[in-house]
Amino acid sequence: MSNLVIGVDLGGTETKIGIVEENGRILSKSIIPTKVFEGRIAVVTRIAEAIKQLIMETGSSVGEIIGIGVGSPGSIDHETGTVLFSPNLPDWSGFELTVILEKLTGIRTFVENDANAFVLGEWAFGAFKGCKHMIGLTLGTGVGGGVITHGTLMTGKNGYGGELGHTIVQIGGPLCGCGSHGCLEALASATAVVNMAREYSKRFSKSLIYQAPQLTARVVFDCAKAGDLAASMIVERVTDALAAAIGNFVHIFNPEHIVIGGGMSRAGSILIDGIRKKLPRFVMPSFSDTFQVNLSELVENAGITGAASIVFYRLS
Amino acid sequence: MSNLVIGVDLGGTETKIGIVEENGRILSKSIIPTKVFEGRIAVVTRIAEAIKQLIMETGSSVGEIIGIGVGSPGSIDHETGTVLFSPNLPDWSGFELTVILEKLTGIRTFVENDANAFVLGEWAFGAFKGCKHMIGLTLGTGVGGGVITHGTLMTGKNGYGGELGHTIVQIGGPLCGCGSHGCLEALASATAVVNMAREYSKRFSKSLIYQAPQLTARVVFDCAKAGDLAASMIVERVTDALAAAIGNFVHIFNPEHIVIGGGMSRAGSILIDGIRKKLPRFVMPSFSDTFQVNLSELVENAGITGAASIVFYRLS
Repeated sequence: MSNLVIGVDLGGTETKIGIVEENGRILSKSIIPTKVFEGRIAVVTRIAEAIKQLIMETGSSVGEIIGIGVGSPGSIDHETGTVLFSPNLPDWSGFELTVILEKLTGIRTFVENDANAFVLGEWAFGAFKGCKHMIGLTLGTGVGGGVITHGTLMTGKNGYGGELGHTIVQIGGPLCGCGSHGCLEALASATAVVNMAREYSKRFSKSLIYQAPQLTARVVFDCAKAGDLAASMIVERVTDALAAAIGNFVHIFNPEHIVIGGGMSRAGSILIDGIRKKLPRFVMPSFSDTFQVNLSELVENAGITGAASIVFYRLS
Repeated sequence: MSNLVIGVDLGGTETKIGIVEENGRILSKSIIPTKVFEGRIAVVTRIAEAIKQLIMETGSSVGEIIGIGVGSPGSIDHETGTVLFSPNLPDWSGFELTVILEKLTGIRTFVENDANAFVLGEWAFGAFKGCKHMIGLTLGTGVGGGVITHGTLMTGKNGYGGELGHTIVQIGGPLCGCGSHGCLEALASATAVVNMAREYSKRFSKSLIYQAPQLTARVVFDCAKAGDLAASMIVERVTDALAAAIGNFVHIFNPEHIVIGGGMSRAGSILIDGIRKKLPRFVMPSFSDTFQVNLSELVENAGITGAASIVFYRLS
């Protein structure tokens, strides 16, 4: 057994770690609390310990591991793997995550933004694996984006590229966490869904969405499936924004495949069918048969396999 | 003298042809009427004749010409140089422009969309030449786009990529020629400017813009410079849309340089200053010092040198 990779899906709350084969199969995995509040060195040390334990438990050796891939929230310097800025890891700005993790484990390490890791995972192991022009969108607390164009992960000059969630589709639209108005993230993230639900609470006080113990994006999608009016209006706004944004990405990148992941993609057919139905409004006829839009099939383990695929991509 | 290239800037009304040196200098040029109504074979034959005459007049020989580059309106198949669809060349769909022009001239030929040719020209000869991450926007009858990312002209799967003018910044905004609403082209092309001016004619019937013999985008910009209210409102809408769209492209591509050309770029400082002033509203702080936005300095000959640069790019 060789060419094994460690995939680390670094999250604000928990971190998932797995040993991954070249075919994407996860040999074993563990989930540890991130405990951001303990500081970055404590967090990375705990991750390094968990990696070593996982290697030992699997009966592998460090020598069989060709690399560690980390998918991290925030802006990552593509070349050095330094965390430049991450709202969910507040004290990590300038943190040389790659260097420290290499020192602690003795294993070559590569760090990428988690949405870039997602699209690399789809490129390596997904339904359209190996396709040269692919876009990944992750719908969660925020909206992340990753782009593969001409077979290359598009990072731009500083490695910040692919911030598809912060493209504006509605000038003057809802305020986004980034300070702009009408970004895709302000219209189609789980946060946006909850915000819209709160805004509707006076007008639609009897809606099913306010009867759940906690108001979440999942509740809104479930209520929309049950035919609730306020919930359905929110889902319409979400799929409008996603269809318009995906139309933009189609015109910009002429991709083969747009794949949607992240927690909110679990909403399933109500989300993807809505997007597909609306896309012809937003896509020029010459592009109409050039691409497919799908939900990721890797959802459960996408974080670990995506992180692992960073290594396969960088060493290929 | 060697490594000369023929640049052909194919337009709906006139076609500009030049012999271009590797440094971008134009040795000689000629302008011929396109006469689209005579049919595509007549048009290409006239272009081939003009090329031969230009070579003869310059005292060059066909052997010194390493290629012909054609910047053509519409969707161009990047691989074959076939015109797929062009609103300004109505009977050209499926026309093998490359093959025909090679037959008629005996010179290797490459055809690209004119906005792609524009960004290649900037990459070859412009103020930021050679930069690896660059975006070109052409503001004319429509809005064209071209993208160089990681040193490669981004064409996408079918060669249709880079349609930046048909990205939506205002869901439900003004109707675009493409059938969508709120595309950049519907808000920031010369056509859009004239349309907005027509819409304002009742409310602002005494505006200076309606006193010119013909209502053009140039008139609107000139009147805005003179302080006319309606004209200034239109220019605000144009620069709002351009700033939002450029913010999007910055978040998507993390480019070093965004360069604006096309006839409307001649509006000058009122346009570029307006965009620059508004950009901080639309760009996340982490990107704020990563890029520059400028008007093209090649305007007069950008069509010919851009077309020529297709050859230098393809053969490099």
